[in-house]
Amino acid sequence: MLRFALFGAGRIGRMHADNLVKHPKAALAWVYDVVEASAGEVAKRHGAERASSVGEALADPAVDAVLIASSTDTHVDLIQAAVEAGKAVLCEKPIDLDIGRVDACWAAIRDRNPRVMLGFNRRFDPSFKAVRDACQAGEIGAVRQVQITSRDPEVPSVAYMKAAGGLLRDMTIHDFDLARYLLGEEPVRVACFAQALIAQEVRDLDDHDTAMVLLETAGGRQACITNYRRAVYGYDQRIEIVGETGMLKAENRRPTTVERWTKDRTEAKDPILHFFIERYQEAYNAEIGAFVEAVEAGAPMPVTFEDGRRALLLANAAYESLRTGAAVTVEE
Amino acid sequence: MLRFALFGAGRIGRMHADNLVKHPKAALAWVYDVVEASAGEVAKRHGAERASSVGEALADPAVDAVLIASSTDTHVDLIQAAVEAGKAVLCEKPIDLDIGRVDACWAAIRDRNPRVMLGFNRRFDPSFKAVRDACQAGEIGAVRQVQITSRDPEVPSVAYMKAAGGLLRDMTIHDFDLARYLLGEEPVRVACFAQALIAQEVRDLDDHDTAMVLLETAGGRQACITNYRRAVYGYDQRIEIVGETGMLKAENRRPTTVERWTKDRTEAKDPILHFFIERYQEAYNAEIGAFVEAVEAGAPMPVTFEDGRRALLLANAAYESLRTGAAVTVEE
Amino acid sequence: MLRFALFGAGRIGRMHADNLVKHPKAALAWVYDVVEASAGEVAKRHGAERASSVGEALADPAVDAVLIASSTDTHVDLIQAAVEAGKAVLCEKPIDLDIGRVDACWAAIRDRNPRVMLGFNRRFDPSFKAVRDACQAGEIGAVRQVQITSRDPEVPSVAYMKAAGGLLRDMTIHDFDLARYLLGEEPVRVACFAQALIAQEVRDLDDHDTAMVLLETAGGRQACITNYRRAVYGYDQRIEIVGETGMLKAENRRPTTVERWTKDRTEAKDPILHFFIERYQEAYNAEIGAFVEAVEAGAPMPVTFEDGRRALLLANAAYESLRTGAAVTVEE
Amino acid sequence: MLRFALFGAGRIGRMHADNLVKHPKAALAWVYDVVEASAGEVAKRHGAERASSVGEALADPAVDAVLIASSTDTHVDLIQAAVEAGKAVLCEKPIDLDIGRVDACWAAIRDRNPRVMLGFNRRFDPSFKAVRDACQAGEIGAVRQVQITSRDPEVPSVAYMKAAGGLLRDMTIHDFDLARYLLGEEPVRVACFAQALIAQEVRDLDDHDTAMVLLETAGGRQACITNYRRAVYGYDQRIEIVGETGMLKAENRRPTTVERWTKDRTEAKDPILHFFIERYQEAYNAEIGAFVEAVEAGAPMPVTFEDGRRALLLANAAYESLRTGAAVTVEE
Repeated sequence: MLRFALFGAGRIGRMHADNLVKHPKAALAWVYDVVEASAGEVAKRHGAERASSVGEALADPAVDAVLIASSTDTHVDLIQAAVEAGKAVLCEKPIDLDIGRVDACWAAIRDRNPRVMLGFNRRFDPSFKAVRDACQAGEIGAVRQVQITSRDPEVPSVAYMKAAGGLLRDMTIHDFDLARYLLGEEPVRVACFAQALIAQEVRDLDDHDTAMVLLETAGGRQACITNYRRAVYGYDQRIEIVGETGMLKAENRRPTTVERWTKDRTEAKDPILHFFIERYQEAYNAEIGAFVEAVEAGAPMPVTFEDGRRALLLANAAYESLRTGAAVTVEE
Repeated sequence: MLRFALFGAGRIGRMHADNLVKHPKAALAWVYDVVEASAGEVAKRHGAERASSVGEALADPAVDAVLIASSTDTHVDLIQAAVEAGKAVLCEKPIDLDIGRVDACWAAIRDRNPRVMLGFNRRFDPSFKAVRDACQAGEIGAVRQVQITSRDPEVPSVAYMKAAGGLLRDMTIHDFDLARYLLGEEPVRVACFAQALIAQEVRDLDDHDTAMVLLETAGGRQACITNYRRAVYGYDQRIEIVGETGMLKAENRRPTTVERWTKDRTEAKDPILHFFIERYQEAYNAEIGAFVEAVEAGAPMPVTFEDGRRALLLANAAYESLRTGAAVTVEE
Repeated sequence: MLRFALFGAGRIGRMHADNLVKHPKAALAWVYDVVEASAGEVAKRHGAERASSVGEALADPAVDAVLIASSTDTHVDLIQAAVEAGKAVLCEKPIDLDIGRVDACWAAIRDRNPRVMLGFNRRFDPSFKAVRDACQAGEIGAVRQVQITSRDPEVPSVAYMKAAGGLLRDMTIHDFDLARYLLGEEPVRVACFAQALIAQEVRDLDDHDTAMVLLETAGGRQACITNYRRAVYGYDQRIEIVGETGMLKAENRRPTTVERWTKDRTEAKDPILHFFIERYQEAYNAEIGAFVEAVEAGAPMPVTFEDGRRALLLANAAYESLRTGAAVTVEE
Repeated sequence: MLRFALFGAGRIGRMHADNLVKHPKAALAWVYDVVEASAGEVAKRHGAERASSVGEALADPAVDAVLIASSTDTHVDLIQAAVEAGKAVLCEKPIDLDIGRVDACWAAIRDRNPRVMLGFNRRFDPSFKAVRDACQAGEIGAVRQVQITSRDPEVPSVAYMKAAGGLLRDMTIHDFDLARYLLGEEPVRVACFAQALIAQEVRDLDDHDTAMVLLETAGGRQACITNYRRAVYGYDQRIEIVGETGMLKAENRRPTTVERWTKDRTEAKDPILHFFIERYQEAYNAEIGAFVEAVEAGAPMPVTFEDGRRALLLANAAYESLRTGAAVTVEE
């Protein structure tokens, strides 16, 4: 049984708490949040303790693991503190918005045999994982081209966007990780076009809501990421991989299999699942499961700190491409 | 080059004329219709002669084949006359509405080495044919259950229904033939439920517009036919076969592959092809081609007079089932 | 909080126990099974007590409800005992194989304000329910034709079949209920063809493995049920309803949305979910939820004792149709 | 009736001849090819004359129009000669591989009221056209992102590639035109990644077989083109457009609607149509029809010389992007 402290009791923290307690080998011991009421509510719901500080939870020797779901700017400090306290860590993406701070964090923990997993949930989606497994098993030979379509149903709030580090570090970062996961080779070049077409508030923040990114590996494999922040038809999450001997796709998911046939339209289906909490429910559960299993077995983390760092490097390269108008070589 | 006389220049006759002249080995020589203007128009369009009588066309030794697309009550006489004149015959379904007249026709022609093909167009639909070919090739092992969904977009005119011999002899007869084609064994028992739910004029004619028919072969294979005469979403034509090692389906067809994704509905497709002339265009062309090829090669007809007779026997058995409320054994 | 006694700790009982304990308003208090070890194991897993007799559990005033998942021949006695003890009842289908015993059971309990729900799980499948809700909301006007395709992946064991009362009372009974649920009118006529085509053991038991059933309501609405017991491609569970202004379908479900495109086949998808426990997982959960909600609210049961009786009447009529070869009018 | 001279009797010229003669308002009068035997064969098949020179055909006052399907390097001379002879011109893409020669050609003909249509066949595909028409009708509001997937089934011959001007001018040029057709605004920036991953002969020619191209319009609309030259699953031709209020897609086409369901794979469909002659058969016919109609009506050409020039400018910009590693602004 793995006993968790949860840091962060906002929307994503609450979701993780709900998933965690359903896992037969996981238990929620402590909840901390700067908003005491939130921490208290989540703790109470699941029979855990509210921690009055991060330190209080980390000091409990019965705590095995920390789940970090607080705001991004707190991640590196919490990772460091948790590793120093000898806890395993499951941290929501991104590690940080600043590569310098990411590297400093790693420098501080690397000699402590850190057990840190990044929460790139999409790797645990059953459909995406099946596609990756089929690739690994050689089902389509060498991978040649990857297409990732990733569209949100709606532009986030201004408050959210202000803290999120920009479209490419907030939203595309998932797709950068997914591209690495699917390409089977490290991307070395990035070109990016991005725009603010949807909403004035996005323009006001010098942020983007519409983007296309090309990636290329040293071996010449290619990926294209397509992002958009107001897909009225729902949370559009699809992948497609072409290899030497075939193509694999994973399509969107819906709540039912109902089709409607009328005078004007045939085989019309439900809207797709609305947003990440519904769409990736199974993935979030499998992510917790993979973390618990790896920690218990002392096995390598399924998604590493370095994976988190690499995704940020790709986001940075994409911003550099936007700034210079050139394809950018990813720095090591 | 096979030179045709066309008897009947109504809607279906005109369609056959259009298809026929596109075939590289077929030519239209004569057109006859009781409505002289219709015959004249079709003849003129394709550079053929208008015949002032059936006899005039049959007397032309250059005529190799006759395509019968006139009203059902003229079929047996025309078949007989054409066979006596030594012509090959492609006759629209049904042979006749009366099994006695069908049998008499056969008695009159059987010793003349008759070259008569029945126009069950659906056997030549590329999708249905591919399903049948896969069955014949053993792809799903022994056939066990066949489902045929066959719905018209609209109730026909009263005039049409008056002459058509009732739903089961007019519309279901195609499905009876298709069931025989797909089952791979002869149906020996029939049970039928039929209703007039859609339109008062159907009730007034003591006809039906909604029907379900079960068929069973001596070997126990089963088929279900579902008919309906006002499918607002289009001409619904589907088959499905389950066998020992798999299932084969053929789905509806559409003019384009366009999908529409909106707030309310996703992957919504075009209406399916509206009615038989669009839906079975390729089938009608392939039917002409198969006839031409069989006649030129002296090969067996791909759909025989006996096939036409068998379909009528099944329709008669279905009417008997309706009358008695019992499952009816098909008479030989 | 509704406290349950579970009677029957076999496969289906264990599944219900697992679902039940996840419901926020349900608790498992007692487990009884003639096989003590099974009852003990399930009780232990969920922190419940093993009852040494049915009476012990029913005598506990803290028990609010009974979930009957024992063998079919025990259902009516358990229903009666539970109702007499003042408990609400959720009973697996069928009530009994014998309509006389069903009617006697009802006679014994009807004056006690019985709170009995039948476990026709398919009514709670999100897709089937969405189709029914759309019908009820008038989305396709008056219902005209219902097609239910219901195929098992494999023939059950001989032991199972011996106790199951035959294909039509064991498997088709679900489809009879579903037909009633979807037709919106009571079926009054039944015609049935059934065969034993798949396995010698089915023939040896005088049972069937391949069946097609037609139903007709007083208003002329029609349903066709297609059953087969060895669909190699998985547990085939589909419905289709045509009405005045459209068609609604619910298709099969799969574990992922992956598509494989190769030289020979395109858009090939996963096998469908294997059998009822996977396919109807959400339905079983919703069924428990609906029971809990109805009991707590004192509301009418969503599936009644009479629904269970009606399904059996249809199965009996189908057997009568098989015996006589006639369409059978359903007895009241 | 429009009388045509056909210049070029290779594969694509023969296809056009076959389509042309089926059009009710078009006739084939002359065929010219540097290979006399080819010209003679096509002329004979359709009852046309073989021209011993281009001039012989152009000198015939009965010739209304010229269809240019000869090798690319002859296009500009033939366009010029035909325009000077007062003929309407339907010219296969591309106009030329060299923008200088394209501009010179235009300078030479622009004052002669040239009637020149470029053969970008994909604009006439019923599905692509339906998508564009829906966009024009405002069905999805302002266009935001276009995705074009365009993959050939196989690498062409070395001889073909040597004359074709490279992947981007030969294959992608269709997609550049399609992107312009669908974006509704002129692309002004291009970024391109291209590789030779498939075949040694492609590398030997310094050509590419795997490419991704990003386009951006002045208004910020984006398009991504994905090209690959050995899609084992067939000629992959799809488009997808996201706009303010929805998404429109056009999917691949297949010869039948058959689905195969087996133990391992469900809903498996036929391979998609193999290559352009099958896939775009309806498009080629519609292209001829649109040309005939425009010429007869004296209406604007549906695809202009400038459209051909613009597509070449985009290909050139893509090559410049490859050379410099930068996003390239399209020259006017």
